[in-house]
Amino acid sequence: MSGRLTFVTLPVAELEAGVEFYHAVFGWRPSRRPPATVFFEVPGVTVALMAAADYSRFVGVDDAAPAGGLHSWNVASAAEVDALIERARQAGAVIRREPAQLDWGGWAGVIESPAGHLWEIVWNPRLEIPGD
Amino acid sequence: MSGRLTFVTLPVAELEAGVEFYHAVFGWRPSRRPPATVFFEVPGVTVALMAAADYSRFVGVDDAAPAGGLHSWNVASAAEVDALIERARQAGAVIRREPAQLDWGGWAGVIESPAGHLWEIVWNPRLEIPGD
Repeated sequence: MSGRLTFVTLPVAELEAGVEFYHAVFGWRPSRRPPATVFFEVPGVTVALMAAADYSRFVGVDDAAPAGGLHSWNVASAAEVDALIERARQAGAVIRREPAQLDWGGWAGVIESPAGHLWEIVWNPRLEIPGD
Repeated sequence: MSGRLTFVTLPVAELEAGVEFYHAVFGWRPSRRPPATVFFEVPGVTVALMAAADYSRFVGVDDAAPAGGLHSWNVASAAEVDALIERARQAGAVIRREPAQLDWGGWAGVIESPAGHLWEIVWNPRLEIPGD
């Protein structure tokens, strides 16, 4: 089955403090800084820090669990997003965000596994993922 | 600065149920199944499921936060592990596991960022990470 982990998104109370912490420890510098999100491109994945309130809206939960995080799993098509979300529903996941178009042109939804972990299932039309 | 994300480790109450869920949704099959951990090798990273009690011991916390997870950041040497842990301490992290040798020969510690996210800083003598 196709797919790739592309993003790890972590909610933080204070974006600036988060940037300082990750720079101090790992030496990371943000590649982009949209208003409420910071992106660190590190080998193999993008680590994103998101202000907690924005994170909660983004993933469709009421509160950001302090230790929580979102893993984005990219698939090859919007249809594959829909299929995975449907399989997740059948497998007992809570669908936190039904599949929908995102403002940057992607198609994605968010599931919460029975163990409480959040996964975004996403299709990015500008990112090639080998199909099945 | 050198490094690479190698593992995302997620605590689950029931290992079997976790394996079934990730197979049902993503089609993943475990590559290895030590008694209390399951490894899925997916493009770019290894996703591990760990029984919650073992996870808590592994990361040095009393309870596994339901939505929690551990990201493993591999560096080029044991000395670099120690340096990052020290920088993390200075930057306000709680050191959940002081750097120590692991039974498989690695050297690692676990930090908790001020926002509550857990990171393992690890050196694996069998994994080459380009130095600074």
